[in-house]
This record gives sequence, C-alpha cells and structure tokens, in this order.
Amino acid sequence: MSRYIKEHSKKKGLPPGALVHIGEKKQDKTKITLFNYSEKKFSEKEISDVNDCLKLSDTSSTSWINVDGLHETKKIKEICSCFNLHPLLVEDIVNTEHRPKIEDHEQYIFITLKMIYLDPETKKIDAEQVSIIFGKNFVLSFQEREGDVFEHIRERLRNDGKIIKKGGTDYLAYTLIDAIVDNYFAILESVGEHLEEIEERLLKNPTSAVMRNIHDLKREMIFLRKAVWPLRDVLSSTGRSESQLLKKNTKDYFRDVHDHTVQVIETIETFREMLSGIQDLYQSSVSNKMNEVMKVLTIIATIFIPLTFVTGLYGMNFKYMPEIAWEYGYPAALLLMVMMATVMILYFRKKKWM
Amino acid sequence: MSRYIKEHSKKKGLPPGALVHIGEKKQDKTKITLFNYSEKKFSEKEISDVNDCLKLSDTSSTSWINVDGLHETKKIKEICSCFNLHPLLVEDIVNTEHRPKIEDHEQYIFITLKMIYLDPETKKIDAEQVSIIFGKNFVLSFQEREGDVFEHIRERLRNDGKIIKKGGTDYLAYTLIDAIVDNYFAILESVGEHLEEIEERLLKNPTSAVMRNIHDLKREMIFLRKAVWPLRDVLSSTGRSESQLLKKNTKDYFRDVHDHTVQVIETIETFREMLSGIQDLYQSSVSNKMNEVMKVLTIIATIFIPLTFVTGLYGMNFKYMPEIAWEYGYPAALLLMVMMATVMILYFRKKKWM
Amino acid sequence: MSRYIKEHSKKKGLPPGALVHIGEKKQDKTKITLFNYSEKKFSEKEISDVNDCLKLSDTSSTSWINVDGLHETKKIKEICSCFNLHPLLVEDIVNTEHRPKIEDHEQYIFITLKMIYLDPETKKIDAEQVSIIFGKNFVLSFQEREGDVFEHIRERLRNDGKIIKKGGTDYLAYTLIDAIVDNYFAILESVGEHLEEIEERLLKNPTSAVMRNIHDLKREMIFLRKAVWPLRDVLSSTGRSESQLLKKNTKDYFRDVHDHTVQVIETIETFREMLSGIQDLYQSSVSNKMNEVMKVLTIIATIFIPLTFVTGLYGMNFKYMPEIAWEYGYPAALLLMVMMATVMILYFRKKKWM
Amino acid sequence: MSRYIKEHSKKKGLPPGALVHIGEKKQDKTKITLFNYSEKKFSEKEISDVNDCLKLSDTSSTSWINVDGLHETKKIKEICSCFNLHPLLVEDIVNTEHRPKIEDHEQYIFITLKMIYLDPETKKIDAEQVSIIFGKNFVLSFQEREGDVFEHIRERLRNDGKIIKKGGTDYLAYTLIDAIVDNYFAILESVGEHLEEIEERLLKNPTSAVMRNIHDLKREMIFLRKAVWPLRDVLSSTGRSESQLLKKNTKDYFRDVHDHTVQVIETIETFREMLSGIQDLYQSSVSNKMNEVMKVLTIIATIFIPLTFVTGLYGMNFKYMPEIAWEYGYPAALLLMVMMATVMILYFRKKKWM
Amino acid sequence: MSRYIKEHSKKKGLPPGALVHIGEKKQDKTKITLFNYSEKKFSEKEISDVNDCLKLSDTSSTSWINVDGLHETKKIKEICSCFNLHPLLVEDIVNTEHRPKIEDHEQYIFITLKMIYLDPETKKIDAEQVSIIFGKNFVLSFQEREGDVFEHIRERLRNDGKIIKKGGTDYLAYTLIDAIVDNYFAILESVGEHLEEIEERLLKNPTSAVMRNIHDLKREMIFLRKAVWPLRDVLSSTGRSESQLLKKNTKDYFRDVHDHTVQVIETIETFREMLSGIQDLYQSSVSNKMNEVMKVLTIIATIFIPLTFVTGLYGMNFKYMPEIAWEYGYPAALLLMVMMATVMILYFRKKKWM
Repeated sequence: MSRYIKEHSKKKGLPPGALVHIGEKKQDKTKITLFNYSEKKFSEKEISDVNDCLKLSDTSSTSWINVDGLHETKKIKEICSCFNLHPLLVEDIVNTEHRPKIEDHEQYIFITLKMIYLDPETKKIDAEQVSIIFGKNFVLSFQEREGDVFEHIRERLRNDGKIIKKGGTDYLAYTLIDAIVDNYFAILESVGEHLEEIEERLLKNPTSAVMRNIHDLKREMIFLRKAVWPLRDVLSSTGRSESQLLKKNTKDYFRDVHDHTVQVIETIETFREMLSGIQDLYQSSVSNKMNEVMKVLTIIATIFIPLTFVTGLYGMNFKYMPEIAWEYGYPAALLLMVMMATVMILYFRKKKWM
Repeated sequence: MSRYIKEHSKKKGLPPGALVHIGEKKQDKTKITLFNYSEKKFSEKEISDVNDCLKLSDTSSTSWINVDGLHETKKIKEICSCFNLHPLLVEDIVNTEHRPKIEDHEQYIFITLKMIYLDPETKKIDAEQVSIIFGKNFVLSFQEREGDVFEHIRERLRNDGKIIKKGGTDYLAYTLIDAIVDNYFAILESVGEHLEEIEERLLKNPTSAVMRNIHDLKREMIFLRKAVWPLRDVLSSTGRSESQLLKKNTKDYFRDVHDHTVQVIETIETFREMLSGIQDLYQSSVSNKMNEVMKVLTIIATIFIPLTFVTGLYGMNFKYMPEIAWEYGYPAALLLMVMMATVMILYFRKKKWM
Repeated sequence: MSRYIKEHSKKKGLPPGALVHIGEKKQDKTKITLFNYSEKKFSEKEISDVNDCLKLSDTSSTSWINVDGLHETKKIKEICSCFNLHPLLVEDIVNTEHRPKIEDHEQYIFITLKMIYLDPETKKIDAEQVSIIFGKNFVLSFQEREGDVFEHIRERLRNDGKIIKKGGTDYLAYTLIDAIVDNYFAILESVGEHLEEIEERLLKNPTSAVMRNIHDLKREMIFLRKAVWPLRDVLSSTGRSESQLLKKNTKDYFRDVHDHTVQVIETIETFREMLSGIQDLYQSSVSNKMNEVMKVLTIIATIFIPLTFVTGLYGMNFKYMPEIAWEYGYPAALLLMVMMATVMILYFRKKKWM
Repeated sequence: MSRYIKEHSKKKGLPPGALVHIGEKKQDKTKITLFNYSEKKFSEKEISDVNDCLKLSDTSSTSWINVDGLHETKKIKEICSCFNLHPLLVEDIVNTEHRPKIEDHEQYIFITLKMIYLDPETKKIDAEQVSIIFGKNFVLSFQEREGDVFEHIRERLRNDGKIIKKGGTDYLAYTLIDAIVDNYFAILESVGEHLEEIEERLLKNPTSAVMRNIHDLKREMIFLRKAVWPLRDVLSSTGRSESQLLKKNTKDYFRDVHDHTVQVIETIETFREMLSGIQDLYQSSVSNKMNEVMKVLTIIATIFIPLTFVTGLYGMNFKYMPEIAWEYGYPAALLLMVMMATVMILYFRKKKWM
Repeated sequence: MSRYIKEHSKKKGLPPGALVHIGEKKQDKTKITLFNYSEKKFSEKEISDVNDCLKLSDTSSTSWINVDGLHETKKIKEICSCFNLHPLLVEDIVNTEHRPKIEDHEQYIFITLKMIYLDPETKKIDAEQVSIIFGKNFVLSFQEREGDVFEHIRERLRNDGKIIKKGGTDYLAYTLIDAIVDNYFAILESVGEHLEEIEERLLKNPTSAVMRNIHDLKREMIFLRKAVWPLRDVLSSTGRSESQLLKKNTKDYFRDVHDHTVQVIETIETFREMLSGIQDLYQSSVSNKMNEVMKVLTIIATIFIPLTFVTGLYGMNFKYMPEIAWEYGYPAALLLMVMMATVMILYFRKKKWM
C-alpha cells in the first residue's frame, strides 16, 4: 500500500454513504471508553454493548465517549446512530485519509484532524485521524489506535479537573484539540534538532548519506504540511462560528489554538526553506570538493606530463643525438626539468590554483 | 495531433455556435441508452431514433439518457434540442477540450468535467470529457466512449437502488460525479505506487531511464492537475447554489464530493513536490557517482604519473649518468618510487579522498 | 527597436493626450472599409474621406468601420471625433503597446486586445493590437495591418449572415473577439506540435540547438502570456457588465469567449511547465552523456597508466637489473600486466562502471 | 552607505516626528521655484524667503511650488507649515527611502513616488523620491535634486499651456506623475535594448562577463520593481478616490496613468523572466563548451594512452624479447598501433563523440 | 535547544492556561520598573512587591510598568492579575515563541511583537519577544531582558517629553513599537552592508567561505521574515481599529509605523532575492574557475600526449628501425614534434580555447 494515498479504490463502485474503512488496521479490537461526569460526580468505564450509549443522551451529566480503532465499521455506525449523526459524517470518520474539516450540524459540531507521531529512529512521520463530535451533553472522539496524547486529560478528569468539568462539551473538545496541537510542537522540536544535526554533519563532510537525509526530511515536511495545513481554516472558522454549542469564552480558546496552528504551519514552511538552503549548501560543498580533487589532478598532470616528455626525448634511440654524448647532458636535462616545473608552479601560484 | 491541445483550429472561421466535434473519435457509433425509472418501476433500452426522447419530457418518471460517442454531432444536437438546451452548451458538449465548468440555466444545470483513465503499461493519463445535464425529471450524460465507471450505478438502478430512485435527478447527477471523482483516487493510488517504485529504483541505481520516468510522471501530473483543478470551483459553487433543482440534502452530498476533489488536488500537488524532490535526489546521485569515478581517475593518475616520470628519467640514454652505473641504482630507484607512492597515498588519506 | 517594449520614449515630454503612434509601421497607407447593413440590406465600400463617417451616426442601419493601419494618427483622430470618442481613448488606439482593457463610456464600449501571429519558420510570435469600439449603431475596429482573421466574418456578412445582421453591434463585437480568440488556439496547436517535436529530438540527441529551441519557445510563451493574460479580466468584466449596450444574450456569448480565454491561458501555463520539464530533461541528458564520456576516459586511463609504468620500469637503463637478464623476464612482465588489467577491469565491473 | 537601504539608523532614538533627512545629499542648496498662474496670467520666480509662501494660500490663482533638494530640513518644515501639512507627512517628505503611498488629508492629498534615472554607462538605476501635495489652489512638489523630467511641463506653462492652466491643481499633479511614469518607459526601453544585446553576446561567446551583466541587470530589476510596484496601488486608489479635490475628469486621467504603471510592472516582470531564461541559456552554453573541451581531451588521451603503452612495451630492455629481434617487428608494431587507433576512432564515431 | 523552535514540549500534557516560560532564561532576576507620570509630574522607581501595582489602577496619572525577564512566571502572573488580564494572555506573554499578534479586550489592548538583535560578529539575528498591554491609564511592557531600545524613551520621559506625557497610553504604546521598528532598519542596514561586502568578496575570489556566508545570511533572512511578517497585519488592524482606547490621531501614527513595517518586509524580500542572485553568481563563478583549470589540463595534456607518443616510438628497441640509424633522424623527429604542437595550438586558438 502506498504511503502517500491509502486504498481509496476500495470505495470505487460502492454507493455513496457505503461504510468502508480506508486506512491501515492499527489495532485489533475497537475499544470504547465512556467518561460520564458532571461538576460533582465522575465515572469511567469500558463499554462493550454500544446500546448502552442510548441511555446517555437525555441525562443532565456530560458524556465523553472515546473510541480507539476504526476498522469495525459496524460498531462505529451503531455508536453514531445513537447520537443521530449524518451518514456522510460516519463515512468521514472511518475514512482515515480525510483532510481536516469542520461541519456544523446544528445539533452537534463535527471536527476531524490529524494526530502526528514521529518514529524516533527512522524520523518518519505518521498521521492518524482523530474525529471529534460534540453536542449539548456529549463528546465523541474517534482515534485509529490507543494513544497517550489524551492520557493527561483523562488523568485530570479522574483527579480534580474542575475547569474541564465546569467547561462544558465545547471546552472538552477544545482541550482534546489543544492536546493534539501541542503535540505538533513536540514533533517540530524533534525535527528542528534533526535539521540542525544534518547541517552540522554537512559542514564536516558532505557525504551522499546527508543528501538522503535532506531528501527524507523534505518529504516528511511535505507530508506534515499536507496534514496540518487545512486545520488552520478549520480552527479559524470555529473561532468565528455562530453555533450555540460554542460559548463565547470557549471561542477565545479556539482562537488561541488557531494561533498555535498558524505557528506550526509557519515553522513547517521555515523548515522547508531551510532544507532548500541546506540542499544548496550540500550541492555547493560537493562541487567544491570535486573541484579540489580536480585541481590536484591538473597540477600533478600538468607538471609531470611535460617533464615525462623530456625524459622520453632523451630516451629515444637515435644514433646521432649530440646531447646524449655530451658530458653534461644529464645534469643539463635535469636542470631543464627543474626549471620547467618551477615555471609551471609559479604560473599556478599566480592563478591562485595552489 | 498534439496531445496537449486538440484540433481547435477546426473551428477557426466558423460562426460561433457552429457544431464541430473537437477531439479524437474514440468510438464508432454514438450509442444512446435510456433508463426510465420512478420509485417503483424501471426500464432500460437502447434507443436509435432520437425523437423517442421527445416523449420523455412530460412524464412523471425520471429519465437518464446516457450518450456514448460525441462525433455524430447531428445526433447530439437533436437530443439537446429535445430538452431545449442552449446552442452554446451543445457546442461545449462536443468540444472535448473544454475545461470543467457549471452553468445554471434555470430549467436545467449543466456540468462538464473530465473522466481520467490511466494506461497501466505506459502510465499515460488519458482524459475523457463527460457532460451532465439535469433538469426537473431528466438527466443527460455524454461520454466520449463507453466506459465502466458508471456501470455500478446502472447495476444499482437495475437491482434495488432505492436511494437513487428516490433521490431525484440532482442525486443521480451527484452519483455520476461521485463515481468519476472516486475513480480519480484509484488513478492516484496507482501513480503513488509508481512513484514509490521509481524512488526505490533510483536509490539502487540512478540510470537515465529513471530520469525519463520522473520526467514522464511530472508531465502526467501537469496534465492531471489541468484536468481536475477547475472541478473544485465547479463543485464549490454547486454546494452553494441557490437553484431550485438542487435539494438541500443533495447539496450536502455535493459538498462531500467537493471535499474529495480538494483532496485529489492536494495529493496531485504533493506528488509534484515529491517528484521535484526525487529529481533533486537523482541529480545529486548522478553527480555523486561521477565524482567517485573522477576520484579514482585522479588517484591512479596522480600516483602513477610521477612514478612514470622517474622510470622515464632512468630510461634516458645519456652516456654520463652516474646512477645508471651504480650497483644499487635499480633498488634505490624502486625504493624512491615506493616512497613517492606512499607519501601520496597518505596525503589522499588525510584529505579523505580515499 | 527592442522587441519587448516599443518606443514609448517618443511620448516623453509631450502633453498627455498628444497623439503619437507607438509601434512599427506595418502598412503603407491606412485603409478604411465601411460595412453598412441592416437585417435586409448590405453595402461595403472603401472610404477615403473620413467625413463620410459623419453621416452614419444617425442612420437606423448598423455600420462597421474597419481601419487597417494606425500610423496616420490624423486620420484616426478624425474618425474617432466623428463618434465623439474620448481623447485618451484615441491615444490608446494608436499606442500599440497598450495592454488589453475594457472601458465603458456609456455611449460606447471600448475594448482593446492583441491579435497573435506565428511566423511558421522562426516560430516567433508577433502581437498586433486590435481595438474595438461599439456603440448603439456602429462598430469601429482598428488593426495595425490588413489581416485575414476577420475575413470569414466579412464573408458571412456579404453572404447570408442573418445571425450577425440581427445580432446588433454587441454581437458583432463579440464575433470579432471570438475570431481573435479562436485564432489563439490555432497558434497554441502549432506551438504544441513544435513542443512535442523538440521533446522527441531531445530524446534522440541532446544537442545545444535543442536548448536554443527550448529557450526560444520559453521566451515566446512569456511574450504570449503577457499578451493574453489581461484579456481574461476584460472578458470577465464584459460578461458581468451592466451596460445597456450589452444584451443579456450577448453576455452569455461573452462568458463563453471568456471561458476560451481561460483555457488559452491554462494551456500557456501548461506549456511553460512542460518546457521547464523538458529543460530539466535536457540538462540531465547532457550530463549523462558527459558522464559516459568521462567514464571511458577514466577506464582507459586507469587501466593503461599502471601498465605504462611497468613498461617504463623495464625500460630503465640501470646496469644491474636482475629481471632484465632473466630469460623469462619478458613473458613474466607481460603476465604481470595482463593480471593488473584484469584486476582493474573486475574492479570496474563490480563498481558497475562498465 | 549601503545602496539597498539608506541610513535609517539616524532616526533610532529620536522621537517620532523628528525631522531627519534620510538619503544622500544630492544637491548643495535647496532651490524653491514658485509658479503662480491662473487661466490668464503666469509668473515664475525663485524664492529664498519661505514666508513668501504664506501669502499664496488665499489668492484665487494657482501656485505650484517646486522644491529641489531635501537635506535642508528646516526650510522644508517651514514650507510645509505654510500649508498646514501634518508633521508625519513632512517626515515622509525628507525620508527619501519611503515607499510610494497616497494619503488623503481632506484639505490636501499627499502622493509620494520614485523618479528613476539610469546611468547610461554602468546601467545602474538610481531612484529619487518625489513628493507631490496638492490642495485647493496649490501644488507642492519635492525632489531630491534638480532634474529635467518636469522641464517640459514648465515649458508648457511658460508658453501657452491652456489645458494645464484650466485643469486645476489635480490635473497639474496628474501631469507631474504622468511625466514620471512616461520616464519609466524610457528607462525600460533602454533596459530592453541592453537585454537583447546581452542575449546576442551570449550566443556568440558565453564569457563570464556576460554572467556578470545578467546578474547586474537582475539586481537592477529587483531594485526597479521595489520602486515602482507600490505605485500601482497608489494610482488605483487615486482613480477610485472620493476626495473633493479630484474632479471626475481627472480621475479618468489617473486611471490612464494607472494602466501605464501596470504595464511598466508587467514589463519588469517579463524582463525578470527573460533574464532567468537567459541565465539558463548561459549555464547550458558554458557546460556545452566545457563538454566539447572534455571530449577532445578524452579522445586524444584515449587514443594515445594505449599507443604509448605499446611503445613502452617495446622500449623495455629485456634481453630475451623475440619481437625485438624480428626483422618486421617495427613495421608490425606500427601496424598494430594504426589498427588500435582506427578501432577507437570508429568506436567514438559510433558513439557520436566525434 | 534548537534555535528554530524552542522547547514547546514543556507544555505537552499540561492543562491549557498553565503558565510555562518557553524560551531561554536571558536574565537572572525579573526587574520591574514603574514610571508614573501626568502632564506635570513624573516619578520613576524600581518595585519589588508586585502588590504596589494594585494602587495604580485608580489614579488619574498614567503608569508605565516595564518588566524585564520573563522566567519568573509567578511574578508575571501577579502583575497581570493586578490589571485583570485574561489568563490565556498571560500564557502568551511568557511563551517567547509566540508570533506577533494583537488582541482587543475592550478594557485593554494586547500587542506582542519581536525585538531584533544582531550579533555584530557572527551576524546572527536574535529575536526577543516584547509584549505591550495598554488600558485607560496604564501601559505594561514585558521584555525577555533589559535592553537599550527603550532607553531613549525613558530619557525623554525623565526630561521634558511633553508630547509623550500628553499623548496618553496609546501614544506611549505607539512610541514603544516605533522604537522597535526603527531598530529593524538599523539591523537591515547592517545586513545590507554585509551583503554588499559578500558580493564584492565573491567577485574577487569565489571561495567556499563565501558560499557559507551566503547560506548563513539566507537563513537569517528566513528567520527575520518569520519574526517581522505577522507584525504587518497587527499594525494594519491597529490602524483600522475601532477601540475607544485608540485616539484618531494615534491611529495616524500607527498607520505610519505600519508603512515602515511594510518597508522592512519589502527590504527583507529584496535581500532574499539578491542573495539568490549572488548564489547564482557564485555557482557560475566557481564553475567558470573550474572550467579554466580544466582547459589548462586539456591543453597541456592534449599537446604533450602525442609528442610523448613520438618519443616512445623512437625509444623502442627494435633491431631494424631505419629512422634510428638515419643521420638526420633526431632533428627530423624534433621537427615533427614541433609541427604537431603547432598544429594543435592553432586548432585550440581557432576553437577559442586559448
């Protein structure tokens, strides 16, 4: 399966709205966790029967249902129908290739975006799709696999976490998105350090391995930008939204995370420009090194070729060669050669080739 | 005939509105198929006499007339006049070089877009023009040749297909467009795999054939982008349209296919950037290989040229050369040469050329 | 005179509104042709006395006055004053360097654009300025020289041409512009074929002549784009115009020709990108060829330089060289050399240089 | 002093509004010339006491005060306070690094733009700041030094010049700006000719001097674009302005000069693209020439190295070498060498290297 | 710590609004200075107990509290709560990686921007974050360390400084921003001079050190642009703001500093383009130099290789070589060699290689 575009073709020929999981199966079983809380109480449980969700919709408390694993499309569909989600939307949840977007469906707001992981060894970036739906008293979050980015939010809910508990579903949704965006920065820091390391290595020794590193990092940046770029518009329109589900106060928070996203994008662009600069530097270093090599060849060859010609001259076997018989022939020839070499070395010095 | 622009010049000198088929003749005979259906009934037949269409306009059932083959302009014209289509529009249908566009003519909406085929062997992309017109109770679709992209829609109509049958003409038009856009993804997947394959081959051995592949793929991407790009605006304005022919619900679907088109375009751009990156990598690999070759030449030449000079020196035939007659002359000369070679090898080692 | 910008400096120091012909004199004498027609009658005559135009303004029939040749500024001025054109506008007509634009002066609409010619031999593009002014019952068209792009329109007027005769002045203006834009396609087709031909030649043999062709074609594309680009906005604003001189129906036609212009521009852009691609391919082909040459040099030199050293060794004249006197010295030396060559050839094979 | 940015740092640490002349002192003394005219009368005098200006503000005639030389900030300030100009504006007048802008201060309109000079020898472009302020009955113009671009306007005022005299202050301001923009064309023509000349020289002989010319011209184009680009917006907003100081008729003229500015900018862009093209051509020419040189080296070396090896072979001094003693050894060796050379020449011919 | 992005990851896992100082600790202790002034009185003191600020909010005089050093987040928080600042805003103050922005909170306006320092030795640019908050009668300014850019403003307050004292808090805020932007020009001047110096050095001798300088300067420009670019929008929206905290007069001043920022950005872009040009020139110079070296090698080798072959020829030891025994053999051989050399030199002259 190509990394750049996943098996969309699965859907070819199916009616619109057909539920097909597009993407890798990253987890064995879909895991559904329910957090139910109000300002005073808090409960957490893993649920297996989706119908349990049905009872949630009319309680006064807030429910956060976190779903890890998207390939069991039937389960996903069931959960979504509990909350009356639009069928196209369910399709978007399980299509892990979807670009970040926001949709306001009056009863609920749907946001899908990318969570980013960086393989510390290969420096490859992996994007996982996260979908967040929040209505009056529920928040649904769908991830491709269990991750630890939301862990500290769960922790805060379990412990005190008054702000979240008071904040309403829009604030919880914001908290989840904020955790994802904060994670982008961690990735970028790691990339930034890798970039500086490449630059240093390049200055020491411009090997072709460095070029490969530059190429790989450029590709990852293209990949990352594609994943993050649309989020900007998503959060910008959230900040300006007129939905009743968004409190004025929360919109301030969304504007704040929008600012962070803009910063992430600018940093990606900066990295891309720097990589271009480093690539130029690499090319110029390589050609410099090559030139140095060539210069040595030229100088050696240019000095010795004429000298060798002279030795060849007096190595000829003609019977009548006056110089050969001359008593000082040999020293004279040596002197001639020394002079020729000297003249050429001086010429090279003047030309600044040595 | 140039691939990049088809024989427009045919039209030069003709009055505007003159019907000229621009493009290749891809099929022998124009084939017209009529699907007539309502929620309960369904009929399908191939029609030869265009006038049969006339009777359709006032029935309560929905008619889908699919026309394969555009070079029989007279037939096309007859069909279009059955439905009172604007003459300029008929001209657009048979001009297969037209860029995707939408036109709202109150009584009907006209959408033209490109269907894409990928030759699996040559990896060449071929674009075929598809025009879709839908009014209150009819949908017309024009293709350059019989294809199989719409086949599964026909299949669904023949079988159950309740959603389509209930959906109205706008929903059928959406289904057709959705099928075309889903097909783009299939093409892109194939291109993506080809791209990864090129990258791998490049890393093994940067031959000039790889460069040709890169060049060809870049050209195909330019071609593809030109074909798909305008569709974005077309679908975006469909989603926002105020036409009475578009139900609110269908507009949601059009927005969904618009999102997919945006994703297609972004993927094309990503591929283009990756191809640029791969090209840089190719150039750098080639020059690396070249440098390696040059280094070997330099080292061999630089070591042996001075040594050969020494042999030349003692190959001279001067009568008075004390070294020649010296008993240890030969071993001394050999020693000198070994020392010279050693010094140079050490120098190259130090310079990291070896 | 520079081709890229014509002698504007002529105007330096003159008051604004001063009438100066900027551009080449492409024709000896200004030729004025008057077509007078209504739905039923038609007359055509060449007029020499400009004052004849005066009588036209109040007739009920439509007059098309076509002027070929712009350097006789006095005549141009006289014609323009017959129809009360704004002085700045007259200045624009004779300044053949003007960029395409539209101006709505209530009583008449002024459109200026470029007609393109392609020299079939040199593949050089030549742009000629055409200005079209149409009011209630007159159309003025100004060209730099007599051309044949409008010929078929004249022909249609002479013969039947009911549509044009009924269409009004705005429709005639549209017909003229449409003829010019259709001509762009003819040029682009020719360019497209030239481009494919270059690509083919390049793949056979990347000579420097090919590079010159690429360079020339790129320059022509820059030139062409500059000439056509502004027309897009001109026609777009015509399509949206609220002038009473433009019938609703005609605006549909203007939108159509606008679509064609967009397509022309996109094709130019596509050609430019393809030329860039071809240039990359050229550069890579040249460097490939160079590398091949260098490899041969390296291999030959690297194999023979050590061998020649050996021959030099045994060509030395030392008195005491045991090998020399050895009976099998010569065959042994030959064997040594064969072995050295073999080792090196194997090394090159392993390195994939041979 | 850097050419690209003048000594702004002078202002660092000063309060805003502090009057500092930024730029070169191009003229010894500030020269103030007053033109006072109405439709019937005209007077011109050089004034030394700035207070003379005070009397002007209430006359019914129009005054044009032209100031050459900006370093005497005190004088500039005095003139400006006569006409109640805003302090920030006075600061802008003497800061010759300011980008073109327009400011509408109800009582007067302030426009600042760049006058361009081209050194005919070095082809360097020099930008001088011109500020124009016009109110109900006065026009102020500030230049860095006496120039001749406005000379013909003065001439027209002195002689008849009815149009200007009737035209009001806005028309005079337009005339000044038009003179400056017309001058841009003169510069561009000269640049265009220089560009064609470079291209021709390049095709004859791609020396490194040509590359320097290209580089210099590119830099001048960057410089020129920076100076002219913002003028477009300035004139565009003038054409749309609602100020009572601008008559409807004059706005037509401003739109006309706006069109010219757009054309200037497009021509600059065209030149930049052409320079890029020429640079590509240069690089390719240089590498072509290099390849030719390398090919000769390769061919000569590749032919003679093996031959020289053969001569070395038979120059060895082994006692037992059967060929040496053979009667036809010498002719046989010669034949061998001729054959080797022939084979290699044929090989090169086949490879199209010769 | 990477230079391009600071340790954002510190925040990962913390609740939103958690106060974390992101950036380097540039100063040991947070220093708080209070300037209290009205038109008539003025006091200045360093305060250690943050609660002193509390008393300020209701006085009629204006207070400017300048805070140097941001790592003592607790103190920052205390100050901010004195003035009822929004918690997210306090977070922004201590996050020194924040991009410039403006936020209008009715009771106060928050502006954050970058102060730029240039290390005169390494030519490295360092950006420090400055946050300015102004309300009805207070101005808060936060810097990362004590700097001298605001020193002259303090000096003016201490001395007369009537304009500032009368100007209100918005004018003081403007003065602070103006001082920062004026400082940008000083940086750019220094960069401009460095750039010209590099260009000159390049023309003398294109060493690889020059390439490194170009690379470094390009990187600094990317860095600088990222720091300054967003300020444009910030100041533009300040100039258009409808806040009651901004007097009409002050908005003129903000528009002025906006103009300056635009100029700074344009200059940065110009520098970037120039650096690209210089890099092209460098590459072309290097390859020119290389070509020159190669040409010498070619000429020397091409002349001497055939000559050496001739000497080898007559150095062969064949018994039967008629030329050897010929009396004029040696001079004839010499003559042959001179002729060969001459022919080749003439050939090179003709080819313009010498």
